[in-house]
Order: sequence, then structure tokens, then C-alpha cells
Amino acid sequence: MLIEKGADKIIKVLRVLIPDRPGSLGRILYAIGEQGAHIGDILRVRFGITHNVRDIEVYLESEDHLERVLAGIGTLEGVIIEEVYDPVLSMHKGGKIKTMSKIVVDGIANLRKVYTPGVAKVCREIVREPDNFEIYTWTQNTVAIVTNGTAVLGLGDIGVRASLPVMEGKAVLLDQLVGLSGIPILIPHKDPDTFVNAVLAIHESFGAINLEDIAAPACFEIEDRLIASGIEKPVMHDDQHGTGVVVLASLLNASKYAGVSLKNETIGLIGLGAAGMGIAKLLHAYGVKRIIGCDLSSQAMELFERTIQGSTANLEELMRSAKIIISTTGQKGLIKPEMVQPGQVILALSNPDPEIRPEDATSAGARFAADGRSVNNAVAYPAIYKGALAARARRIGNRMKIEAAKTIASFAEEGEILPSVLNKAMHEATARTIERTAYESGLARVIKEES
Amino acid sequence: MLIEKGADKIIKVLRVLIPDRPGSLGRILYAIGEQGAHIGDILRVRFGITHNVRDIEVYLESEDHLERVLAGIGTLEGVIIEEVYDPVLSMHKGGKIKTMSKIVVDGIANLRKVYTPGVAKVCREIVREPDNFEIYTWTQNTVAIVTNGTAVLGLGDIGVRASLPVMEGKAVLLDQLVGLSGIPILIPHKDPDTFVNAVLAIHESFGAINLEDIAAPACFEIEDRLIASGIEKPVMHDDQHGTGVVVLASLLNASKYAGVSLKNETIGLIGLGAAGMGIAKLLHAYGVKRIIGCDLSSQAMELFERTIQGSTANLEELMRSAKIIISTTGQKGLIKPEMVQPGQVILALSNPDPEIRPEDATSAGARFAADGRSVNNAVAYPAIYKGALAARARRIGNRMKIEAAKTIASFAEEGEILPSVLNKAMHEATARTIERTAYESGLARVIKEES
Repeated sequence: MLIEKGADKIIKVLRVLIPDRPGSLGRILYAIGEQGAHIGDILRVRFGITHNVRDIEVYLESEDHLERVLAGIGTLEGVIIEEVYDPVLSMHKGGKIKTMSKIVVDGIANLRKVYTPGVAKVCREIVREPDNFEIYTWTQNTVAIVTNGTAVLGLGDIGVRASLPVMEGKAVLLDQLVGLSGIPILIPHKDPDTFVNAVLAIHESFGAINLEDIAAPACFEIEDRLIASGIEKPVMHDDQHGTGVVVLASLLNASKYAGVSLKNETIGLIGLGAAGMGIAKLLHAYGVKRIIGCDLSSQAMELFERTIQGSTANLEELMRSAKIIISTTGQKGLIKPEMVQPGQVILALSNPDPEIRPEDATSAGARFAADGRSVNNAVAYPAIYKGALAARARRIGNRMKIEAAKTIASFAEEGEILPSVLNKAMHEATARTIERTAYESGLARVIKEES
Repeated sequence: MLIEKGADKIIKVLRVLIPDRPGSLGRILYAIGEQGAHIGDILRVRFGITHNVRDIEVYLESEDHLERVLAGIGTLEGVIIEEVYDPVLSMHKGGKIKTMSKIVVDGIANLRKVYTPGVAKVCREIVREPDNFEIYTWTQNTVAIVTNGTAVLGLGDIGVRASLPVMEGKAVLLDQLVGLSGIPILIPHKDPDTFVNAVLAIHESFGAINLEDIAAPACFEIEDRLIASGIEKPVMHDDQHGTGVVVLASLLNASKYAGVSLKNETIGLIGLGAAGMGIAKLLHAYGVKRIIGCDLSSQAMELFERTIQGSTANLEELMRSAKIIISTTGQKGLIKPEMVQPGQVILALSNPDPEIRPEDATSAGARFAADGRSVNNAVAYPAIYKGALAARARRIGNRMKIEAAKTIASFAEEGEILPSVLNKAMHEATARTIERTAYESGLARVIKEES
């Protein structure tokens, strides 16, 4: 609860020197509470003979609020504020990832096996049998996370440098959730041609390509061209297809709870950018017959009609005629309560502020409603790459995505539409589903294993 | 000693099930010895009630020799050979490196700081103050190891895929020796133009660029153009300048032992490829007045004359007129004993087979001689990048390389020309020298630090 509250507050950590007497900590916390600030984690930093040092996390409304909290603590005898720092920024300092050796080099004999002259033998093995490349290198465990920084989170076109903390965050999750190596690659070019050529020039370095935070419509052309280039490895624009998979998984559960039939209902998509189009493509492939789209851009609507033969409407028409609504517009409060029809299922996915708050949607008659906080791509993309790399998939087909969505949906607890991002059993099961489906749909690649 | 012997032998590990009775292991080792095979490490794999399993490393002349050893063991009662494997290949299986998160993601609160929504704050900090890019991303700890696979070890133009085990080996050493993240980047293009453009398209992803195993003369143009491009970060072709630094360090010690004056003697360079030219450039910058070069390629000789205003000669003339000889030709036995002049210092650096064996050179009258086994780039390149990144160096200047060579030389034990690759104190001291010299020579870049 506090966590959710923290999302729109300033979080600071107060490093405080406290007299080692019973009651001292209580007095400080009371003083913080008197100023109306919430308290998060309290961690011991060091213990001395007369004083202890603790880090106290506080949630604040503003910088002024911080000043009042500090002044309040300042009145307490013997308490010294050593430092005030931002716990989010300090977590990101120096970056969040690193490349490490899997082998400890602790002697010359070891070094001579890992490096020259021993490594020459491994090179020769790859020259002799090209399939050995995938056995004796890290590539089958690597995903390039490639961006041009044009559509980063809700921040928009902030450039590649400012986007890197997000790309590192994706790599953190690849490591922590499924043990893959993610490598952020920044390509500061908006022109699809230049971007695609740069990716093609370096793709041999990686087993898979994750396109990330690239604005529509360039993202569509870039993905299509990379897949058509014949590089025959998993390439996926996560904002499209990762979103498609988590939304399909969510809908499988939401439609069950709401007692509606996903394939036979009319689905309305508000917003036809990368996310909207990714959802549209996957729902179409899943077999949903009627999909209506709407977007402020007529170019986006034309692409939608052409790609999945969907029909288009304006916002009001769409809200009147669709049973299931999915919005990905970035427009806070776009859906007014009076537009909601009784019995609708509404996923208002824009972050941090949804098109309609779930509680407002259900008050207005919706059967089921959720927002973007509970629908997170990180539920899907790590296992998609894990499974696709395990199968050495030539590409990531729709059937793989649909089966992944079913597996993900099956791990949600009763009443929830998605499982927790941190559910490792879910990631493992999804990766196995992806791998198996790659084989079943003829997209896996079998290589000559060494005897 | 055995290690050196192993370099030209086949190494296998025999995983053997041995009766748990005193004398069993001895009988096996005796049987192996009877077939004339050397024995390396013996490791316990598991212990059972009646049997134990051990891995016995053996050094063999040929596959036939292995068959004879296995047959010899086969005659022993109760001994079963479970498996025979290649310890070098198994070390490289699945690759030698991985990217890892520096943060353990163990809860939703944590996840929301590392990834969305918390990460948006870090992005905004970089938008607000561009220098924050270097504070809040991993770039200042990363080195791209970029190759086109055209001049790999002694193997030549084997292509990017077969070269990757070497690039991973470089990354292993960056991690293990100085804690930097190395990321292999494979660019399968021989044309300097295409190669340079690909590097420029992705350079924002990395703090430094290590050019590796790129054949001459393309390597010269590629490095020059990247440095001239204005990317203002450390770019270095290790085969040139890493070699230059270790050779200068070696010569500082060798000339001391041989009682000759480095700057005032005539130095002869046999072979003017990447290594030869790198050595020539650094010795010229160091102040050596007379450098003579020779190469089979007239193009290489012209480049040498143009670049450092050196003179050229044929092999015989060069051997007659230079006091210090450095050969990097890849031609085993090129220098005949009868060419050696009394009192010469000879570094015959080609691997695995030098132009003249050190013992043959000294027998023929050389005052000091060494081969490539003792002159390894890994002594220099990790600390060069560590120090250059710490100083945010705009480029790696000659003064930085010369000071690094002096620091490296000072760590050699008496009688040796270079310290051990595994000497961490040496790497730390060299990195500090590089950092300090970057500041002193005006190549360091100072950024706005957060308060």
C-alpha cells in the first residue's frame, strides 16, 4: 500500500546518528510522523558505544516537506542527521549490470586454457564445424536490448543516453528472472534504414534481438525488415509483442471472470501505437473475429485496417459497441465514466495514469477493470527469449506467443489476471512452453552437437 | 614445466571409477605412466561406498596414444572409464562470460525502484543534466571488444564467429584483472568504411572501444578514423598499442640487463603489421632515434617510413645494423643463428613459434633473448582501459602509454622483463598511472558530479 503511495511521492533516506538509549528511535519516528510523512524501511548502518546509525526511508510530498521533517528531527537532543540521499538514484549509480567471467582465473595453467594458447583450439573447432559457434560461445544466452530512445516509458523521445537506465533495467530482469545476459545497445538514429543496417552489422554478436522503446510507426518497419533480413534468430519489439502476450494472458483470465467469450466478443482498442498494434496482431492471430480500433492518427488507423483487416471507429462509437476495451493511449482520464457500458471488461493500461481508474470503471458498470500497474511486460519477455534461445528459434511465431499467454494466465491466482513478475516457476514454465511450441511449429533449429 | 609441455600436446581428462581400496589409484597412474603419458591434475569427483570417481588429466601425443592409455587402464580389474573429455573445450562450453545484475531483485518494492516506475526518475536526471549519463549508467565501466575476425591469434582470417572465443577471453581478463565489463561486438566487414560506421552507430553504448584482431592495413585506417571522428572516448587497437606498451616495458628491463641505452641504440623491427607498427609508433614517441623496419610487403614498408620517418632494410642488413631486434612476423625460425650479432637484444615474439628460440639466440651470441610466451598483451590492456575510463579520457595519448610501460616494467622481478599477468597490484598501479597521466596531459574529462 505504501509502495503504491510512494509512486507519486519523493522518497528520501535519512541517515541519522541516534543516542543508544531506549526510546530514542521512537522519538525520531514520532517527530517524522508529526510532520505528516510516511516511513518505509529502517535499516541499521552501524552500532557504536554511545550512538547508532540508521537509515530511515521517508515518503514526502515535496522538498519543503523534507525541510519540515528535518527541522522536526533537529529539535531532538543528541540526534544528528548525517546525510540525506535518494535511494532510487543511489541504486542506479554506476549502472545496474556488469559482464562477468564464469571462470575464475587463478593461475597461469587456467589462464592458458581460457586465453591463449588454449583458446585457439576452440576457434579451430568453430572453423571446422560452424554449429560449434553456438556451443562454445555465450551467444545462445544473450539478448541485445536495442533502442533509439524515441519512445521511452511515458517520457517520449528522450534520446538514447537518457534511455539507458531503462535498457539496463531490462537486462537486470533478464538475469534475475531467467538467467540470460542482456546487453543494451544504443543506436541514436530515427531513420529505419540506418537503424536496421546498424543492427544487421552487429547481430552476430547476440543470440536474440529485443527492440525496445522505439516509436511508432518506425518500430513496425524496423521489426519487419529485421525479421525479413534472413538473420534467422529471435527478433521482437517488446512494446508490441511482449505487451500482446501479457494482454492476451490478462484477457484469458478477465474474460473467464466476467463470463464472456474472448473469441466471439467485439474487442475495442483505443490507441494504435506500438502496444495497441501488438495487441491487435496477437488477438487477431488468436482468433478474435471483431476488433475495432481508434487512434488520433489516421495513418495509424490505416495501418491497423491493412494489417489485421480491422474496422475503425471514433472513441464514443467504439465504447458503445465493444464488450472488451483495451486502451494504450497515454491519455489520463480519456475514458469518462458515462462512456462505460454495463458488463464491459476494461483494461486501461497507460502508465502512470490510466485512461480510467479501475474503481471508477466498475462503479460505472464495468464487469471487470484493471490498469497498467498490474499488466507488466516483464511477466512475458524474459521467458519468451529464454525459450526461443533454447530452441534456437528462427523467429518468434504467433503460436509461440499464444501458448506463452496461456501458460502465463494459468499461473495467476484466483481473482487475479496475471501472476507476479517475480514468480520464477511461471517464467520457467513459460520458457518451456515457448521452446516446445517452437519445435512443434517448425521454427526450432537443430544443430550438430559434439559427441 | 608440464604446462609448457602441454602446449603442443593433447590434453584429455579421464573420468575413472576406481575401487575404494588402497593402491587402486597408484595402479592406474602406473598404467598411464607405462604408456609414456604425463599426468596433470587429479581431482575427486564423488566418493561411493565401494568405488570412487576421479578426474585424471593426461597429456598425450596423439589420438592413438590416448587409445593405448585407455587400453592399458582397461586391463586393470574393477576400474571403469566413465568418460573421456577435453578440459579446454569444456571450459569454453556455453561461453565464458555473462551479464549480471548488480542488484538482487527480491521483492516488488525493489523491482519498482530498479525498473518502472522508479527508473523514470533516473532517465529524467540524465535529460536534466547530460553528465549524469556517466554517473547513472554502466558505460564508464564498459569496453566494447570489436573485431572483424581477420587476424585472429596465429590463425589469420577465420571470420567473426570463430573469433568470438578470443573476444570472450579478453572480456574474462577485463573482469578478472581490473573489474571492467567487456562486451564482444562482431562486425563481419572488411571494408573500413562499413566497419567504422557500424562502430560509430553503437559507440554510445560503451565507455571505451577496444579494436581487436583486425588485419593490417585496414586496422590503421579504422583506428585513425574512429579517433578522428570526435567520439572522444578511449579507442585503441590492442594488437598495435597494447603490444607497443608491453614491448616498451620489456625493453626498459632488457636494455637495463644488457647494459644498452634504449633511446640511443638502433632498433630493428622485423615485421611491420599491426604489432610491428604499434611498437614502432610507441618507440618513436618514447624518443628512440634510429628505428629500422623490414617487411615482405612494400606497402607496409612505405607506411612505416611515412608514419615514423624510419628507414627500411632487408632482413640481413637489419640484423647486421641493429642492436635491439624485435620480430613479429609469424614466421617460425626466420632468424638464423648465424645472423645474430654479439651483444644483441632479441625479442622474437611470434606465437606459438618464435623467429628464433631464446636459447639459440643466446648460444649464437645475443646478450638477452625472449620469445612471445613471456610478452603478453594482457599485462597492459586491462589497466590501460581501467585508468582511461576512470579519467574519462578523450583518447589514449602516447604519454599515457609510455608511463604505463614504465610502471609495468617496475613490477618485473629481478631478471624478468615483465611482471606476471596475474599480478593485481601491477594492474592497479598501472591503471592509476594511466589515470594520473591522462589528467597531466590534458586528456581527462571532468564532469559535473551530483552534490
